[in-house]
Amino acid sequence: MAVYTHITDEALEAFLSDYDIGRAVAFKGIAEGVSNSNYLLETDKGRFILTVYEARVDAGDLPYFLGLMRHLADAGFPSAAPVPGRDGVALRSIGGKPAAIAMFLQGMSATRPDAALCREAGRGLAWLHQAAADYPATRPNDLGHEHWRAMFAPIAGAAEALKPGLAATIWGDLEMLERRWPADLPLGTIHEDFFPDNVFFKDRQFAAAIDFYFACTDALAYDVAVTLNAWCFEQEGSFNITKAQALIAGYEERRPLSAAERAAMPVLAHGAAMRFFLTRLADHANPAPGALITPKDPLEYERKLAVHRAGIHLFGFS
Amino acid sequence: MAVYTHITDEALEAFLSDYDIGRAVAFKGIAEGVSNSNYLLETDKGRFILTVYEARVDAGDLPYFLGLMRHLADAGFPSAAPVPGRDGVALRSIGGKPAAIAMFLQGMSATRPDAALCREAGRGLAWLHQAAADYPATRPNDLGHEHWRAMFAPIAGAAEALKPGLAATIWGDLEMLERRWPADLPLGTIHEDFFPDNVFFKDRQFAAAIDFYFACTDALAYDVAVTLNAWCFEQEGSFNITKAQALIAGYEERRPLSAAERAAMPVLAHGAAMRFFLTRLADHANPAPGALITPKDPLEYERKLAVHRAGIHLFGFS
Repeated sequence: MAVYTHITDEALEAFLSDYDIGRAVAFKGIAEGVSNSNYLLETDKGRFILTVYEARVDAGDLPYFLGLMRHLADAGFPSAAPVPGRDGVALRSIGGKPAAIAMFLQGMSATRPDAALCREAGRGLAWLHQAAADYPATRPNDLGHEHWRAMFAPIAGAAEALKPGLAATIWGDLEMLERRWPADLPLGTIHEDFFPDNVFFKDRQFAAAIDFYFACTDALAYDVAVTLNAWCFEQEGSFNITKAQALIAGYEERRPLSAAERAAMPVLAHGAAMRFFLTRLADHANPAPGALITPKDPLEYERKLAVHRAGIHLFGFS
Repeated sequence: MAVYTHITDEALEAFLSDYDIGRAVAFKGIAEGVSNSNYLLETDKGRFILTVYEARVDAGDLPYFLGLMRHLADAGFPSAAPVPGRDGVALRSIGGKPAAIAMFLQGMSATRPDAALCREAGRGLAWLHQAAADYPATRPNDLGHEHWRAMFAPIAGAAEALKPGLAATIWGDLEMLERRWPADLPLGTIHEDFFPDNVFFKDRQFAAAIDFYFACTDALAYDVAVTLNAWCFEQEGSFNITKAQALIAGYEERRPLSAAERAAMPVLAHGAAMRFFLTRLADHANPAPGALITPKDPLEYERKLAVHRAGIHLFGFS
């Protein structure tokens, strides 16, 4: 959760004067998103979310993200369509920071999704991959596997402080991941943060996805692996194979995985756990100044790494 | 702003099963209130605010607060009516904490209210005092003038650390306030936190007041003094007498002040500044563990105290 920027009523009024969406009748900061400030904006014409992009998001990437949101909405994928100003431009600024308005989406995220919801999540992820397939823009995955060594080097000491011996274990993982990382898997636009808080359900059916600010171009199966890690571990740390199979089955209703994608899944999931371990460890080692969020526990993903290190037989072979 | 309690979807579903307000279709933590967690709750039947009361609020006071909210709504004062469960009870619990649902209110608060909005605020405050006049319950003001010495004693060192010499100045103020505090002013139910964030406007007219969790029984004119301090100081620290006169004129449209109330206003305003200085200093000296809010600057009210110490001639006499 995060609300960093205080928006005055004058600033809001000036900002809205460039839109054709009426006048504000309610405006509240909401606890959603970790790298942006989000506000519920109600006008006499409808309800919207105003997002103010904080320093953590590279402003140069915003046209890619907003373009993707526009593309997905146009393709019929249930997500928040950006609302352009009168001049047709969606990316604007408020209080000197980049900002954009999107439609308000109904839907509830699931705190502890069961296997049936995991299946729905898988179906939603495949739908997203299909809807984004002809999005023409690309963005390199700056948190992708080629970067993990460089991400770990400055925080190896923090890993060791967390748990003696962990730094050597991580270096070993990184070496293995480099050696075994699959080449030539189908690429596409991936969400890369398809976590339960970013997925809405309605009547236990997939209803929408939000928060596309990690989206990038990478292997589609890697996005499945990120999602498996986010949805299929139990709180006590075990991997729930029933949920994982349900998630994959839901995914394959829309987009069957190739044999190469299936074979790569264990190493992709190990790598996906590494990516979140590394960013959480970095946040833990260097908490953002002024952030109102408590850094997420890096040890959660250290435990997931350990599970993958021991090996998960997802499809009857590892 | 504050969202302290994480509510799972299962907990919310169980909680809502005691109400007749439909099923949740959207649920978001909002940045409103400093001592509670607040959530925008949308169901298929309407929109509501769910408030979860954190440790800072004395649970024994909640029936008084919710009863007042009910009383005000029944009296036609624009505020959020509590929504009872099927059994007629508004105060319930979620995740082991007291909680209540109220109607969602439209309206925007003003960041930098001008004199016309100060007048509207004054009118709204008098309306509140009148609507609450026959509320039968009472609550002693546990942050009232009799408590200020006891509140200051443990944090006098923190005052001194903030600004050398400040502790002695505050003790001097407290002595003067005790000596000059008016007796026999008309008592009633006061809001005691009628700050700009707790007041909504629509089309530049007073539209509603929220956040009754400091309400108590005290001198009505003291509530006017709290409100003057909150609305009529400029950011650079000066007291804007035009705004103050507008606020009082708005108040007197509905409830004229007596000669004794007018004569007492400078000392009441000095005391009201003391009360907020003391609570902010206490928060600054002992920040709440796990609080997501930045403690408000105690020096803001130290500067207001200094202005009152020098004397404001509100009504042509001090």
